Amino acid sequence: MSEQRSSTGPTTAGAHDGALAELVGLAGYVELRTFGLLAAHAVGAPDLAGAQQLARVAGRVLRRQEELLAVGTAQGADELSLMEPFRHVLDPFDERTPASSWWEGLLKGVVGHGVAGDLCRLLARGLPAQDAAAVGAAIGVTDAEREHDDAATVLVRSAAQADAVLASRLALWGRRVVGESLTLAQTLLAQRPALAGLAREAARRFHQPGEAGVDVTAWVLSELTAEHTRRMDRMGLAA
Amino acid sequence: MSEQRSSTGPTTAGAHDGALAELVGLAGYVELRTFGLLAAHAVGAPDLAGAQQLARVAGRVLRRQEELLAVGTAQGADELSLMEPFRHVLDPFDERTPASSWWEGLLKGVVGHGVAGDLCRLLARGLPAQDAAAVGAAIGVTDAEREHDDAATVLVRSAAQADAVLASRLALWGRRVVGESLTLAQTLLAQRPALAGLAREAARRFHQPGEAGVDVTAWVLSELTAEHTRRMDRMGLAA
Repeated sequence: MSEQRSSTGPTTAGAHDGALAELVGLAGYVELRTFGLLAAHAVGAPDLAGAQQLARVAGRVLRRQEELLAVGTAQGADELSLMEPFRHVLDPFDERTPASSWWEGLLKGVVGHGVAGDLCRLLARGLPAQDAAAVGAAIGVTDAEREHDDAATVLVRSAAQADAVLASRLALWGRRVVGESLTLAQTLLAQRPALAGLAREAARRFHQPGEAGVDVTAWVLSELTAEHTRRMDRMGLAA
Repeated sequence: MSEQRSSTGPTTAGAHDGALAELVGLAGYVELRTFGLLAAHAVGAPDLAGAQQLARVAGRVLRRQEELLAVGTAQGADELSLMEPFRHVLDPFDERTPASSWWEGLLKGVVGHGVAGDLCRLLARGLPAQDAAAVGAAIGVTDAEREHDDAATVLVRSAAQADAVLASRLALWGRRVVGESLTLAQTLLAQRPALAGLAREAARRFHQPGEAGVDVTAWVLSELTAEHTRRMDRMGLAA
């Protein structure tokens, strides 16, 4: 059905618009929170270089969020209404991952935002082609963005290389944060039929036609875990 | 001398380059800190609308900071070296103005950043014309920026209108913050001859030729106080 719609051209209201709005609202809210987390860490950065770099990463997250919200408002939705349903979505996650140091807070941002971004990109692959392109352009990671995001990654990697105790503590913390992030992803898919529909469609397109027994949630979690492992590798932390 | 240089065209190294570098470094560092303060307040905003608005104000402060640093780096300076001398410039100010609530923290950002921005714009008027134009473009406030900055102002105004006790507490707090801000401005002029030179030149241009007995520091403080009063008026707070 989505294939059909994407081939018929210009936007028409339909079942998929609800899914697009949900995805934009979720991603927009999570990026707003990530912005706040990274910016707050810029304040407490160990040196001026780190402060400036983290401020830039935060600024880039905010610009991406604004582009994403623009995709939603282009369809007539109000940006606050888009995000409102997800206002408390991070509360249980935050309660279960109280960072006990600046480094833990920074890693929480990198890991949590990483998983959330991967989830949103994955779900975007379930949108009709034209919407997928619009959302993908806003939340897709270009090389330039990757370089910016890596400022946080590089900070963690350098600190971990210089301090083995910190490295093992952060590795442990990363596992806890990713565990809670994956729980959150599962909860979202269970509670939000529109998002679950996007995941199903993304899985359908990813797998061979007729491939039997695909558990959509398991597929999503394995994709997110694989990306998380790569991210921890880049930071020199055991996943 | 500065007039002469601005009329001779392209940039040549000179006494004023030190002043430009100092002004860019000071303004850049203060904006980095303001960014962090506003972004951190976006996290704790009373509602989603406030969070989004404050994030945007913070994002705009950061963009302005990056434009400003670019003016310095265009002259061959490294952006971190520009800011480094001012790394601890806000420490005594911060020690003397510990915000005891989210609102006090927000007002501290509005008032402190306001005074700092006014000081930098005033000092920029003492630069040779070409530098003044470059710096002015980066730290000058356009109508669009004013509208964004006013998001914080509007938040304070609404809260003060709705709660007389809060309004009188914030008015008191604003006086304390502006007092410390003016002390900081005086300290800077006393400790940084290059910045004091800009203030002298700005005062010279402002006043009538031959006008006697101009106390530069007193003139700077009176200009900053006048702008502060207008800012407090816009927030509906007694200055």
